Formats: sequence, C-alpha cells, structure tokens
Amino acid sequence: MDLKNYVASIPDFPSKGILFRDVTPLLADSEAFAETIRIIADYAKKIGAEVVVGPESRGFIFGCPVAYGAGMGFVPVRKPGKLPRETVSFKYDLEYGSNELFIHADAIKKGQKVLIVDDLLATGGTAEAACKLVEKLGGEVAGLAFIIELEALKGREVLKGYDVMTLLKY
Amino acid sequence: MDLKNYVASIPDFPSKGILFRDVTPLLADSEAFAETIRIIADYAKKIGAEVVVGPESRGFIFGCPVAYGAGMGFVPVRKPGKLPRETVSFKYDLEYGSNELFIHADAIKKGQKVLIVDDLLATGGTAEAACKLVEKLGGEVAGLAFIIELEALKGREVLKGYDVMTLLKY
Repeated sequence: MDLKNYVASIPDFPSKGILFRDVTPLLADSEAFAETIRIIADYAKKIGAEVVVGPESRGFIFGCPVAYGAGMGFVPVRKPGKLPRETVSFKYDLEYGSNELFIHADAIKKGQKVLIVDDLLATGGTAEAACKLVEKLGGEVAGLAFIIELEALKGREVLKGYDVMTLLKY
Repeated sequence: MDLKNYVASIPDFPSKGILFRDVTPLLADSEAFAETIRIIADYAKKIGAEVVVGPESRGFIFGCPVAYGAGMGFVPVRKPGKLPRETVSFKYDLEYGSNELFIHADAIKKGQKVLIVDDLLATGGTAEAACKLVEKLGGEVAGLAFIIELEALKGREVLKGYDVMTLLKY
C-alpha cells in the first residue's frame, strides 16, 4: 500500500509559495489510516517506549491512536491556557515571533521512555520543544515519529542525537 | 474500572466559577484510556457507523483512536483557516460572539453513517454544528459519543432526535 497516494498536495496553502501536504485523505481511508497507525505503534514497541506524547493539535490525530494501538497512555503538549493543572513550558523562536508549549508537570515519570508523535517534520521546532519538555520532567525521548518529512527544511539536523522515523519523505 | 477516578476536577478553570473536568489523567493511564476507547468503538459498531467525525482539538484525542479501534476512517471538523481544500462551514452563536466550524466538502459520502466523537457534552453547540456539517454533505448522524456530560448545561436537549451516549455524567 503506497500511503503517498493518500496525501493531497495543495499549492499556495496556507500562504503563497507553500506546497501543503494534506493527510486528510489518509485519515478518511480506514485501511490507509490503520496501516499508518500500525507502523508507528510497532515502532513504539521496538524502541521500548512506555508512553506517547503529541503536540496540539495534529499530533493528537496520530499520537492518540498510536498510544491506543501500542497499549500505552497519551500525554498532550498544548498551547498556552489549555492545561488546567501545574505545567512546565518551553519557548522557542519562529521565523516571526515566538511560540510557547506546555506539558503538565506530573505527566511524565522520571526515567520514563517516551515516543513523540506528530504529523509533520518540517523545521523541527515543535518537535524539539516537545523533547525539551519531556526532558525537563526527567523523561527519556526514546524516539520521534512523523507521518511526513519535508527534507529540505532539515528538521532532522535539529533533532540530531534522537531516533527519528518518518513514513513519507518529500 | 471506575473511569471517574481518572478525571481531575479543577476549580476556577479556565475562569472563576467554572469547575473544569480534566481528562488528562485518563489519557495518561493505558488501561483507562484503552477501556474508554473500546467502549466507544463498540458503540460505533453497534449503531452501524461507517466513519468517525471529531471536532478540533479534543475531539481528535478520542475520535482518532475510536476510528482506529473500530476499523473506520476519521474526518476532522476544524476551526477557520485549517483545512486546505474546498470546505463547507456552519456558524453558531456563543454566549459572547460566534464560532464557525469547517469540514472538507468531499469528506462524507451521501448516505454515509457517521459517529461524532468529542470529549465533552456541555451546551451542545459544537456537537450540533458537527451534525449540521455532516448533514450538509448528505451524511447521516448515526450517533454522538462523549466522554463527559455536564447534565446541568442541557446539551442533550439541543441534540434531541439524535442517539447520544456519554460515559461519565456530572
């Protein structure tokens, strides 16, 4: 099954010059979706992960079924103002401005092995922030999994030293 | 297994006077999470659903693993500016201001039976919007499933005529 057949390429979205890779056809197809989740759930087990972390909101789309499929729990990384209990946060720069992501302070146990899941590896900024949050809590990033990797944006260099798996490279 | 043991109650979040029901402990516990998803996936099959629809972003957290667990595809309902292809939208009033939700125009086939999944049934506004979007595309809402129901807010009245199941009532 060639999962690339279930990714639509949309020119000039969300802004001019950007070729957006749209995974909604993959999500909508029960077999393509199930195969995607199975591959990442197998990876989760192979690297010895104990829990899955995913950043809001497309990290939820793949991270939650991976956690369910691998028999693990799920921990959300969220934008400001969304998590109700004590949090730790990590702030990082974007091309214009900055972004801050949060995790509940009790979400990861010391030494716990974590798989981080998101839909897209682009510049790697969000993924790096998720790694820092896990490590701030004493967790260990056992690996990161992404559906799509935009190789020209060199996110892998930002994540050097981590185990990174991506399903579809563009 | 009493799933209510995995819901934290946070006073005055996100604003004074609101008692927030926090499902992140349930998500983080592999067994509580798996039981939650199994119950809703069984419901999805019982009502003959063919696809799962979930609104951004907490609808993704439960809707995506339910779709995976039931062997179905998943269709996201999203906020403005997030879906890259042709959409239909539904606008609804909030206490202050209004909200507009979107779905891809080709996401649901005519006559397709849909389960809508979200974390919380409160006033029912978001759920009703999701129903309208499915119906605009010619789909049939076979049922709606929520983890938590805040009974005092009477969301069930807004959803009268639909099959509604909720796991935890407060």
